[in-house]
Formats: sequence, C-alpha cells, structure tokens
Amino acid sequence: MNKINPLLAAFQQTSYPLGGHGKRNIQVLIDALQDVDGLTDGDTYGNGKLIEDFQAEMATFLGKESAVFFPSGTMAQQIALRIWCDRKGNKKVAYHPLSHLEIHEEDGLKELHHIQPILLGEKDRLIRLEDVQQLKDDVACILLELPQREIGGQLPDYEELTQISSYCRSRGIHLHLDGARLYEILPYYQKSAREICELFDSVYISFYKGIGGIAGAILAGDETFTKESKVWKRRHGGDLISLYPYIVSASYYFKQRVDKMEQYYEGAIELAARYNQVPGIVTNPVQPVTNMFHVHIQMPKEKMESLLINLYEATGVGLTHYVKEINETSCCYEVSIGDRYASVPKDELGKAFAWLESQMIENRV
Amino acid sequence: MNKINPLLAAFQQTSYPLGGHGKRNIQVLIDALQDVDGLTDGDTYGNGKLIEDFQAEMATFLGKESAVFFPSGTMAQQIALRIWCDRKGNKKVAYHPLSHLEIHEEDGLKELHHIQPILLGEKDRLIRLEDVQQLKDDVACILLELPQREIGGQLPDYEELTQISSYCRSRGIHLHLDGARLYEILPYYQKSAREICELFDSVYISFYKGIGGIAGAILAGDETFTKESKVWKRRHGGDLISLYPYIVSASYYFKQRVDKMEQYYEGAIELAARYNQVPGIVTNPVQPVTNMFHVHIQMPKEKMESLLINLYEATGVGLTHYVKEINETSCCYEVSIGDRYASVPKDELGKAFAWLESQMIENRV
Repeated sequence: MNKINPLLAAFQQTSYPLGGHGKRNIQVLIDALQDVDGLTDGDTYGNGKLIEDFQAEMATFLGKESAVFFPSGTMAQQIALRIWCDRKGNKKVAYHPLSHLEIHEEDGLKELHHIQPILLGEKDRLIRLEDVQQLKDDVACILLELPQREIGGQLPDYEELTQISSYCRSRGIHLHLDGARLYEILPYYQKSAREICELFDSVYISFYKGIGGIAGAILAGDETFTKESKVWKRRHGGDLISLYPYIVSASYYFKQRVDKMEQYYEGAIELAARYNQVPGIVTNPVQPVTNMFHVHIQMPKEKMESLLINLYEATGVGLTHYVKEINETSCCYEVSIGDRYASVPKDELGKAFAWLESQMIENRV
Repeated sequence: MNKINPLLAAFQQTSYPLGGHGKRNIQVLIDALQDVDGLTDGDTYGNGKLIEDFQAEMATFLGKESAVFFPSGTMAQQIALRIWCDRKGNKKVAYHPLSHLEIHEEDGLKELHHIQPILLGEKDRLIRLEDVQQLKDDVACILLELPQREIGGQLPDYEELTQISSYCRSRGIHLHLDGARLYEILPYYQKSAREICELFDSVYISFYKGIGGIAGAILAGDETFTKESKVWKRRHGGDLISLYPYIVSASYYFKQRVDKMEQYYEGAIELAARYNQVPGIVTNPVQPVTNMFHVHIQMPKEKMESLLINLYEATGVGLTHYVKEINETSCCYEVSIGDRYASVPKDELGKAFAWLESQMIENRV
C-alpha cells in the first residue's frame, strides 16, 4: 500500500469536489444492481441474452453492423489494429505520439502483436489532414483519438475529420476510432454517434469515463471484423466465463448519463472560463470542446500542492486530487466534468476562485 | 441467440440437478455483495487495499511470496509461461496434449507469444516421470495440470509429483502449476495448498470452478515473477481500472467453500459408484480423486439425450445438461460436484439410478 499523499487526503475531505461523477467505491456496483432480477442468467463465454442484447444495442447506437463487449479498451484496440494489419498484410499503423497505445500500455501492441506504430503529427497538437496526406509509410490503419486526451481533449473540425476519412478510404487505409470519450464529443459536433462512427471502419467506446461504469469497452465494426475480434479476445484471455458485472453497470450508467453530455460540456466551458481569469493559470484548450480540459499553472508543483491544500481547507471546494510537474516552474492537471459539478453551489465556487486568484497574485510577487 | 436445446431445457426443469453449486445467474453477484460496505474503495489499476489484501491472502494460502489477481486463467498462464521462457531465453514449453492452452485458447500462446509447445505424454493418460525424463527438447518450462481435467480429473501419486518436481529443479526447468482446480485435489493428497505449491515455481488458481465465483484468477510466485506478470497483464489488456466485482465474489465464495472440498470429493466417489453399477456406463476415473469425473456411455449421443430427457421428466433428477459424442456408438459428459449434491434426497437419487439402469438394459436389447 502506498501512503496517501497530502493533496489527495485533503481533496477527499472537501465538501465540493468539482470533477467526475462521484467516488469509485463499491456502491457504484450496488446501485447498478438495484433493479436487476437476480434470476437473470449471466453471460457465458460471450454468449447469452444479457451480453448479446447489450452488444446489439451498442451496435445500433454506433451505427455499426456488430459490436463485441471487451473487458478493456487496451485489449479491444490492440485487437482492432491487429485485424486491420492482418487484412492488409502490413504490420504498420499510424497514431498520435500521445496515443494511449503508445504511452499507457507497456508496448502491448509491439510486444504481443509485433505491430510497428508510425507517430503521426506532433505531441502538442492534433493530427491534421496534411499529416495524413504526407505520411510516407504505407500503413494498414490510422487510429484517431477523439478527443485527443493528452492535449486537454482537443477536436479537429468536423470538416477536417470527414476529409481525413475520405482520404483514408480513397487510399485503402483503415480508419479506427479511439472513442473512449465518444459521447463527450457529440455536443460540440452536434452530431449523433452514428454520424461520427460512419467515418470510421471500427470504433472502440469505454464505459468508465463519461459514463462512469466500473470497467469495460465495446468494439464495433462489420460482422467479419467483430467475429475475428472474438477469436483474439479469447487469445488475449478476455473471453471471461462471465463479464456481466461490467455489462450490467455499463448498461445502467449509459442510460443514466448518455444524455447528460451537453450538461457536462457546458460545465467544462464555465469552469475553464473561471480558471482563465486567474493570473498564472490557463486551460488547454482555452475553451473546452468536450467535458474535459487541462489546467496549466505557472508555479512549481510542490508550491501549488500546498496552495491547493490550503484552498480546500479554506473553502471546502476540491479542484483536483493530483498535480503533475511540467518543469521546475510549472505544473498541470486534468479536469473532467461529470455529475458532481452541477451540485456545487455557484457562490461556493465563486469564493474558491476568488481565494485562488488572491493567492496566485500573492505568490507571484 | 442460439435456440436452447431440448436436453438443456429439460435439465433446467429438474428439481434435483446433481452437479455444481447452482445457477450462474446474477444472484451470485448480489449474494457476494450482501455484507459489503458500499463505501469500500474499489481497486484502481491493480492498486488499493481491496485487491492488495486479497492478493496477500492468496499468496499466504499458496505459500508463495507474492500473488496477482487476473481477470482470467487464460491470461495468467500464457503470461507465466512467457516469463519463464524469457528468463531462459528459450521459446519452448511442455504440457499435456489436452492442456487448456492447447485446446481452449485459440492458440493464444503461439499467436501472441510465439511460444512453441511440446506435447508431453499421451492424450488419454497423465504425464509420467518418464515422459519428463525422456523429453528430447530443451524446454524453459513444464506446465502440469492437477487434476488433468480432460481425462476426467486424474492425478499422479504425490510421490511421482515430487519426483517430477525434483527432476525439473535439477535440470533448471521451471515448473508451473495449472491449479484451476487446486482446492479440489487437496483431500485426495491430504496436503495443504502450500505443500502442493512448493513443488512448483509458479501457480495459477481459479475462482469460478470449485469456488463458484463469477470469474478471475490468481497467479503466484516470487516477487520478481509477479512484478513482471503485472507488466504483461497490462499488455494483454487485463489491468482493468477495477476488478473488484470479481475479487469481492472470489473472496466471498472462497471463504464459503474452500473447506467443503472433502464433502464434494466424497460426493463424487459416491455418485461415480452409482454410475458404475449401471450396465453400459463407466466413469473415468472409476474412483474419482477429486470432485469431478467423466461419464462414458455405450450409446449413441442422440439416443442418450432422449433417454435423459425421459429420465428427468420421470424422476426430477438432472444428471447433465449436455452430452458429447465420442463416436457413433458412445458418448460422454463431465460431472463436477459442488453444493447442490448434498441437498439431493438419497431416495430420489436411488430412484433415478434405478430408472437409468432399467432403461439402459432395455435399450441394449
């Protein structure tokens, strides 16, 4: 057990934590089961009404022929890229330098599938149509992550997205969507999930980010693709005898939250505006295009942590449970808006930001 | 959705199904949560008190330095073999021709890890000391499955097991235990889990077989081994943000059932004896050494299915939900004894076997 850090401890004591839906405790599962009939059969190795119905529902939501429930997105996406590589007889794919596959998966794609990623675009910006057009390597597949999480959740214009999609189709390059936060982008684009997904050959969505479930993912595409994905799911050790704890909770929180993405998005815009009024703080993007953004602070990490602990004690408002160092003079953290934000009284929020502003000014002297 | 087959439908209507613990419906999860405080924090990417405590408990139970919770045994075992192969710089392992890895995992070990399995011994019998001694190939690891499920759950003598272990140690061959049914073998050996596991370098155990949990597995060994296994767990997509639904249920049913293995074992011996009195039926093994055995019937599959449906309707006793064809004149099925068996009245059981005997005799005329 790691000892809990002081900032996290202080955050957990606040009356008004701003991000997310709530604590990720076991109550999340208990709540999801409250209306479930215990006599409902569990799924068995990918079969059974419970898993098949949910997969069909998600296929319809995404406008794809077929969908498969996976324990994780890490597994689902490696498999998607593997299938497209096998289809083309080409072991190269292209994705953003800060793709989840590149920085959070211990190189599973390379170690297990021997797929060579080509890093497309630059770390600090979105992939552009020109990046795709100027790609020198012949790749089987391009993965686009919408929004691009590691740069604060940015999005290309819909027009550019359709151009990238058309270009890939004209060149026979498969296009895969890392849609871990797909629901969260729909208010900005003013499109349905189907309209976004029809630009892609395959799509992954997650159930524990905006939706706030326990874990689990859906991979969707045409039937040949999803059928093949089930073979790889078994190879990866993801074809569990029963996945229903994740399916039941995914289904429960999907119904509860899929239509609240506009509310989360508006909350993010409002909160980012408050941050941007504070000297020495800027959000990325300045105006969020989803429910998320990054907060960049011109202050050393340790100093900012102390300041935040004092802020939490003084105001009861919790801005973040962690701070990440950028360099010796600046730091950052990520904000994702969920259910919690709407229940924070605006005057408490106002007081907290007034406190933050005064302290930032004082500390910069 | 597959249409339910008539034998399964008839089985589900019986008052006295003989095998297993009960239906694998969502009640299994609801029951496991009944005494859990909803405010208990979930695990987060392998960290947190809930997962760490359970891992420590299982490490102690198995007498190993360290243990890691996995979503599945398929994932855990491929990873165990991969680590031993990497350790030896040798891509060959040896296991039984009917090992789970060989017949139930879509060749994940070969497709993902490029490990070459050497099939040890023969399909219809256990691996013997001589098989190991006469192994021509230089292998990094040998996997032993105790009991050997696909031949009815047979076990080598403890003496032979220790000899195989000593031989492997003397040759620097790592020995891994497929202990999916480890608890179930302890009454026969009259040994603790620790005593069995100390013969092996690494061990996998399952929580949904004898224990009757929802899914999940533990992989145990020394700390260097388990630390490395966590990296591969992430690569496989098994390092879920939260695994607690499986951990909570594994812990709950482990406590409930780990000490009932003797009862299940004795039930299996009793039930097998009843089967062996029926003309045209023999169990494998004739006297079970765990809670499981296979039933071999000299009758074509379809004919046996009809007979069983009639038996269920006539007596209310359910022997099996499926029958597998061996050849045109014989068929088989597997029996695993759990909680259900003890609650079946002996006179009902007697009537069912009397009915079965009379029908088997009649049908053989």
